[in-house]
Parts: sequence; structure tokens; C-alpha cells
Amino acid sequence: MCSIDVAASSVSSMYSATDVLKNRVGVYMETTKKFLGLTCQKILKVGRDDPRRAIHSVKVGLSLTLVSLLYLLEPLFNGIGQNAIWAVMTVVVVLEFTAGATLCKGLNRGLGTLLAGSLAFLFEYIARETGKVFCAIFIGALVFLIGAMSTYLRFFPTVKKNYDYGVIIFLLTFNLITISSYRVEDVLKIARERLYTMAIGSGVCIVMSLFIFPNWSGENLHNFSVSKIEGLAKSIEACVNEYFSDRETNVGKDNSMEDPIYENYKAVLDSKSTDETLALHTSWEPRHSWHCDPIPWQQYVKLGAVLRHFGYTVVALHGCLRTEIQTPKSVRLLFKDPCTRLATEVSKALMELADSIRNRRQCSPEVLSDHLHQALQDLDTALKSQPRLFLGPNGPNNTANMLALVAETTRLKPEKQLSSVKTESSALYEWKSKRVSKQLEVEGRFLRPTLSKIAITSLEFSEALPFAAFVALLVEAVAKLDLVIEEVEELGRIACFKDFDDHVIVDVDEKSKMEINLPSDPVE
Amino acid sequence: MCSIDVAASSVSSMYSATDVLKNRVGVYMETTKKFLGLTCQKILKVGRDDPRRAIHSVKVGLSLTLVSLLYLLEPLFNGIGQNAIWAVMTVVVVLEFTAGATLCKGLNRGLGTLLAGSLAFLFEYIARETGKVFCAIFIGALVFLIGAMSTYLRFFPTVKKNYDYGVIIFLLTFNLITISSYRVEDVLKIARERLYTMAIGSGVCIVMSLFIFPNWSGENLHNFSVSKIEGLAKSIEACVNEYFSDRETNVGKDNSMEDPIYENYKAVLDSKSTDETLALHTSWEPRHSWHCDPIPWQQYVKLGAVLRHFGYTVVALHGCLRTEIQTPKSVRLLFKDPCTRLATEVSKALMELADSIRNRRQCSPEVLSDHLHQALQDLDTALKSQPRLFLGPNGPNNTANMLALVAETTRLKPEKQLSSVKTESSALYEWKSKRVSKQLEVEGRFLRPTLSKIAITSLEFSEALPFAAFVALLVEAVAKLDLVIEEVEELGRIACFKDFDDHVIVDVDEKSKMEINLPSDPVE
Repeated sequence: MCSIDVAASSVSSMYSATDVLKNRVGVYMETTKKFLGLTCQKILKVGRDDPRRAIHSVKVGLSLTLVSLLYLLEPLFNGIGQNAIWAVMTVVVVLEFTAGATLCKGLNRGLGTLLAGSLAFLFEYIARETGKVFCAIFIGALVFLIGAMSTYLRFFPTVKKNYDYGVIIFLLTFNLITISSYRVEDVLKIARERLYTMAIGSGVCIVMSLFIFPNWSGENLHNFSVSKIEGLAKSIEACVNEYFSDRETNVGKDNSMEDPIYENYKAVLDSKSTDETLALHTSWEPRHSWHCDPIPWQQYVKLGAVLRHFGYTVVALHGCLRTEIQTPKSVRLLFKDPCTRLATEVSKALMELADSIRNRRQCSPEVLSDHLHQALQDLDTALKSQPRLFLGPNGPNNTANMLALVAETTRLKPEKQLSSVKTESSALYEWKSKRVSKQLEVEGRFLRPTLSKIAITSLEFSEALPFAAFVALLVEAVAKLDLVIEEVEELGRIACFKDFDDHVIVDVDEKSKMEINLPSDPVE
Repeated sequence: MCSIDVAASSVSSMYSATDVLKNRVGVYMETTKKFLGLTCQKILKVGRDDPRRAIHSVKVGLSLTLVSLLYLLEPLFNGIGQNAIWAVMTVVVVLEFTAGATLCKGLNRGLGTLLAGSLAFLFEYIARETGKVFCAIFIGALVFLIGAMSTYLRFFPTVKKNYDYGVIIFLLTFNLITISSYRVEDVLKIARERLYTMAIGSGVCIVMSLFIFPNWSGENLHNFSVSKIEGLAKSIEACVNEYFSDRETNVGKDNSMEDPIYENYKAVLDSKSTDETLALHTSWEPRHSWHCDPIPWQQYVKLGAVLRHFGYTVVALHGCLRTEIQTPKSVRLLFKDPCTRLATEVSKALMELADSIRNRRQCSPEVLSDHLHQALQDLDTALKSQPRLFLGPNGPNNTANMLALVAETTRLKPEKQLSSVKTESSALYEWKSKRVSKQLEVEGRFLRPTLSKIAITSLEFSEALPFAAFVALLVEAVAKLDLVIEEVEELGRIACFKDFDDHVIVDVDEKSKMEINLPSDPVE
């Protein structure tokens, strides 16, 4: 009985084991399939986001194959020999995504090598006159001195920025030659051969990056500036629209990660290092004419700085949407039209600026200012003509009373106030419960509604302020816009953009926009 | 007569020529002396700013001399041979300023070399079975494929961030071995020897960076966070003080370059890339314990993000000082005390946070909040209790009327208004004249007073708004401060900071502050 039981159970367990195994294999296959599918999608996405990446990869492969022919083909190898390997090394290290980066690295490498070579041979000439032991001590001391000095040099900001790679190559080459010269007799011959093969490698890199599907850093810088301005334009309009929208505000919800407004201006805020890298590489790229600089990188950096400061105003404006203390919707709606119109005008002006840069033509500052001035005046008029604004004994000029109205409306509609302004205890409770179920999110967390421990919401004075702050920041954005216009005009002057003509040209440019607007790869 | 004249003039011209020459030599000597003096000062300044730089330079020199002994000393050279040069190369390329950066590069290099070596030998095994011509074609195709694939891999954000150097080394090593194997028979022996010498070089680097005067990226990240918080604290206090100061405002003057407020928060705004680099290197540094992470780099990055957003609010607050439209001084002075007090409290709270991070102890959130809450309440009370605030038929609760007061005061004192608010035509004129005598300044230009073409100053509604915006932004800063406190508390929890005790510990920490607060070098 017992044995039968055991046998039966062992058979059933065998069956079940096979089933389990089958199931597991099935699940495993499924998972693998899914994983492979996802990986493939990811891989394709990188190329689809910017097809120039795929082209660049092929270019690198091709260059490497070309220089490896120096080694693989009999006649070439007989001429050049073992040192052909240095051509391969040069290509791997120097060939970068954009022409500017390649030239920057290539010229740094060339300069560093030449300088190190001449210095090393000078010292070798001195060392050769002395005995073997003294020579070794001399070389050791030299290696120490030059090593320490060049490392110290790398801490200078100018050197760090422009010639860091050159100094490393200088140090490398100097040490290689100086130390080798102690054992090898014909170090001059070796050095010369290496220089030749390095020159071949550099030549291949330069041809590949300058003449075959070139990617220009200047082009990237240009496109990056355009996309930054467009992002700001979109986000300022979206900001004002959301502020006056009828939908329930997002206070309390934590959807900052996919916030379209944040997505639009995010690139601007942290653009400093990207701007500077692109500008540095652009400065190494060849100019097409001496008379006029088509990509004045310094001006683009300046424009970037002004755009960042415009961005800070947009962040502050965005902050008005997210604070716990909100002016009641009903009050806001009174001023919806003029505010929206002003934001639309600012956004339009920015779009016009972006368009003018993209099409390399001057912008029309008069048109911009007239529209904007009109919108500002309208806002002014709207605030003045609102009949409910007059509370005190002051004449119709007392525009500041609109804020008194704000406060009054707040008091008149306590049920509205309760929905938008929380009491101290409930805010504290919510903050605490939030604290417990906290999630980890690295970026974008700062955008979630600020539930302060200090319970700002319980204080009365805060309710009237946000709307005033919102309007003030909007006006501040107009003032910042002026600086942006100034920098774009300066850019047009330096880069000799074509003159602004009427919309005939604009229409033509509209059509060719798609071809010019290459996707940019600011990261490198 | 004529010849005497000529002779006399030639003599005098000879004299004068000698004099001119002497003068010129004198001037030249003077200039050279000055230039040398300046250069020396510059060189010394780099070391004095951060003495660790000089130490690091000596360390690099020492390491290079050590590995060059492999080549210079007879017995060592006989053992290792020509390949000793690879140890020198490794030291030059891998030894970086901080331990984290060195480990990151060293391990990337090691991994890349090992992976490339094994792959190359696998393919060599396959290629060896075939004929010479086929082998060459096979190698060429391999070089192309692997080159293109690894370059494509470098465009993936994760790879780019963590393993970029490793991929380059992989490509380099793979090509060197694969191509060499076509001509050289004992490529395995060469590869092994190179690996040994590379290991020696890496060992020297690791010893030098981890055990001899080590510079930790984590320490830099820590100090950088402290200095950022302190900068924000200083700038918010300075901002409010300047807003309420009796001195003439700087509207119209272009002293943005040396603005101390800007200097204080500048580092925060563009800290993203520095933060991320430091955090990346910190992530490679060894932990002292498994139980508790002394430098939780992810939390520091999060704190940095929150601090940046606090910084944007400070920028907006700073913008209130610089706009052309200014609320009259007399009105501002009415609310000087509560505003200043609030700013002082915020600044104190930030300083307490900075201190707590520096001394690695928990902060005392209750103390912070209580003081702040008191200051907020005071501001509220001040706004309410101002007797001149009541203009309309509303009760004493109508706090928003203070803005009506602002407008009234402005209207009552037309001579004050004229000095602070310009008419449209004069603003336009000033803008134009400024345009003509424009100077080039790259950074900081956005801070100069915004003289808009659109002549915002001529509109009436703007005068009351800036003060409301200023107060609203101050309150916003308090709300952002809460997020900062939250992140610092989280940091204290993760990093196991010691518990907050009473001021006995604080006093002790005060004394040791000078030793702990090493100057930071965020750039590397």
C-alpha cells in the first residue's frame, strides 16, 4: 500500500515535473521573446531618433577598415610596417560625432605630439652626452618634472576647456619617447614612422568627418537654439492656458513627471554645459567666409544665457500653477482674455524669432513690439475697465484695487475658498500621509504641489498675492523677451542673416522648414 | 650750410635713435617683468585656491617616475621588456584627480581590455583555420562590424554615461589584437605581457589615488552641496536687504558682473552637470560599511535638483530688484521689518541645514518651522495692522488693500513716481542711446535693468504689482524651503547622520568646522 502510494506519487510527480518544466520553458521562451523584442525596439529607437547616429557608426567602421588595410595589404605593410597600428589607434580615439569635435581632438593630438616630440629630442640630445647612470637619473627627474608640471597645467580653466586632451597626449608622447630612447637606439626613426601613420589616421578622420555626410557642431548649436526658443514659446502659452482653464487644477496630484510644460522648458534650464561644448567644437570648425561668420558661436552662447534667464521666469510662472495657495477660479476668469492674449503674443513673438533663426533671416522687431504693446495695453484697459474693481473712494485710475476685489470675492464665496485653500490641519494631515506613501523620483519632484509643514495656506494674506505675482511675472517675461529679441537681432547682424522681407519669403521658408530642421543631438 | 644741417640732424637723429632704443628696451623690460609677475601670481593662485591640486600634480609625477623604473632599471627591464611602456601609458590616462574618477576609468579600462581580448582570441581561433586571403577579408569585415556596433552602442544614454571610456578601450584593444594577429605569430604572448604591465600601471594608480593623500569625489559632492546651500542662504538675505535698503537702487547701472547676490546663487543654477559627474564618480568609490551609505550620491543629486529649483525662485526674487518698474521706497519701507525678518529666518534655516550636513548630524526641523511660522505670522499681522491700509468699506480683514495703498501712495507723491517710473518716450530714448554705446559682456548681461522697447513702464497697472510679486515669491521661497528640508532629512536618514543634540554638540562642531570644510573642486 505504502509502496504503491509512493510509486503513484512518484509517477504523478514525474508527470507534474514534466509539466512544470514545459511550463517553465514556455514562460522562459516568452520572456526571452519579449526581452529581445524590447531590446530591438530600444536599439532601433536610438537610430530612429537621429539617423545620423547610424551613419556615424558606419563611418567609424569604414574608417577602421580603411586604416587596417595598411596592415592587411602586403605592399602597404612592406612600406609602413609594424607602426601601422598607430593609424588604427588614432582613428579610434579621434573620430567623433561632429566635425568640430573631430578637428578639436585631432589638432590637439597633433599639436601635443609635435611639441612633445621636439622637447623629448632636445632633452635626449643633452642626455646622450652623459654616462648611462646619469642618463637614467636625468630621465627619471625629467619624467617627474614634466609629469607634475603638465598635470598642474590642466587645472587652469582655459587649458582645461580647450587643450585638456592635447596636454594628455603631450605627456603620453613625451614619456614614450624619452623612456624608449634609453633602450632603443634609432628612436628618431620610430618616432618619425609613428608620426607618419598618425598623420594617415588623422587624414582619414578628417576626410570622413568633413566630407562624407558631415555633422556640424555649428548646425547642432543652431538647431538647439531654435528648439530651445520654441520650447519656451510653447511652455509659456501652456502655462497661462492651464492657469485659466476650467479643468480642476492639479494641486495635490503628482503628475510632474509627464508635465508637458516642464518637458518644454526643461532643456533650456540645464543647457549651459551643452551650449558650451557645442560652441567649443563649433569654434574649431572651418568658416566658409572671412567677411561674415555664419555660426557666431559666442553669440549663440550669449543667446543661450538670455534664454536660460527667460526660462527662470517661466519656472516661476509655472510655480504659480503649482502652489497650494490659489486665487479662486472665478476671479481669475475675469482677466482670462487679456492675460491669454498677452501670453499668446509673447509665444508668437518667440516663434517668429525661432523661425527667423531657423531660416537665417532677420526678424521684424517692429511687428513684434506693436502686437505686444497692444496686448499689454489691453491687459491694462481690462484691469481698469472692470466695473467691480472700484471699492474705495478712489477714481477709476486705481488699478491696484483689482487685488482688493480678489480678496473680496474670496471672502464672498467661502465654499469656493474651501475647495482651493486648505485649512492648516488638513494640509498637515495630507502632508503626513503623503510622507508615508512616498515614492522615489529623482528629477521633477520639486514640481509637485508644495505642502508646507509651515502651513502657509492657513494665513490670510497669501490668497490675494498669487494672482498679482502671476501678472507681474507675465510682465517680467515680456521684459525678458526684449533681451531675447536684442540678442537675436545681434545674432542676425553678426551672422549676416538675409533681410526681412514680406511674407512671400516667409511662405517659401515654411516649405523648406522640414528639410532644414534636422534633429539635433546636443549631447554629443 | 645745407650739408652742416644734414650732419647735425643726422647726429641728433642718432642720439634720439639711441634714446628711443633705450626707452624701448626699458619699456620692454618693464612689460616683461610685469607679465612674468602676473603669470607667477596666476600660477600660484591655482594652487592656493585648492592645495590638493599641487599635491595631485606631485602624485602624478611620482607615479610616472615609478613606472618608468620598470624600463630604466636593468633587472626589471630584463623581466618585463619592451612592453613596460604600456604601464606608463596606463598611468598617464587613468590617474585622475579623485579616487572615484580613477577607479571609474581604471575599471572601465580593465573591463574593456579583458572583453576585447577574449573576443579577439575567439575570432582569431576561427580565422586561423582558413586561408591567408580569406583570413584578411574576415579580419576586415570583423573590424568594420565591431567598429560600427560599438560606436552605435556609445549613443545609448546609459552606456554613454557610465561606460563610454570602456567601450573606446574595448574597440582599441580589439582592433590592436585582431589586426596584429595577422602578421605576428605569438600575439597571445604579447597580449599577456601587455596585460601584466597594464595591471602594474593600474595598481600604481589605485595605490596612489586611494592611499596617498586621497581626494574623494564623495567628499567633494558633500562640500559642494554645503556651499550651494550657504550661497542660497546668503543671496536670499542680501536680496531682501537690498530691496529695502535706503541706498539708491541700481536700476540703470550695469554692475551685474560683480553683483554679490548673483555670485552667491550662480553656482547653484548651473550645477546639474557638476552634480552628476561627481555623483557618477562617487558611485565608483568604495563604501566603508554595508549597513549605511556614508555618501548616498543619488540623494545628493536629488537634493541638488531641489536646490536648483529653490535657486530659480531666488532668481525671480532678484529680478524684482532689477526691473524698471519699482514700487516707491516709502511704501516698501512700511513692510521692511516683517519681510526682512522672514528672509533672515529662511536664511538661518538654510544655514542650519548647511551646518547639519557639514557636521553630518540630523537637523532640528521643529526649531526651523517654529521660527519660520512666527515670521510668517508676523508678516501677516504687519499687513493687517497697518492702519493706512483700509481704503474701502471692508473690515480689518481685507489684507489685500495694502496694494491699494501702494497705488495711492504712488499717486500722492508724483515727484517720487517720476524718479522711479519713466515715461514712455524717455524710456525709449534711453534704450536707444544704450543701444549705440553697447558693450560686450557674455555672462550676467541678463541681469541689467530691462529697458523694454515695449515701454512697460508707461502702463499704470504695473506699479502695484512688483511688491505683491516680491512678497509672493518670498512666500514661495518658504514653500520651496520645505522641500529642501525634506530632502536634507532624507539624506540624514540614508546616510545615518548622528542624532540632533542640544547646542553642546553644535559648539564642538563649530570649532572643527575649519578642518572639515576642505575647499571643493567641483569641476573634476
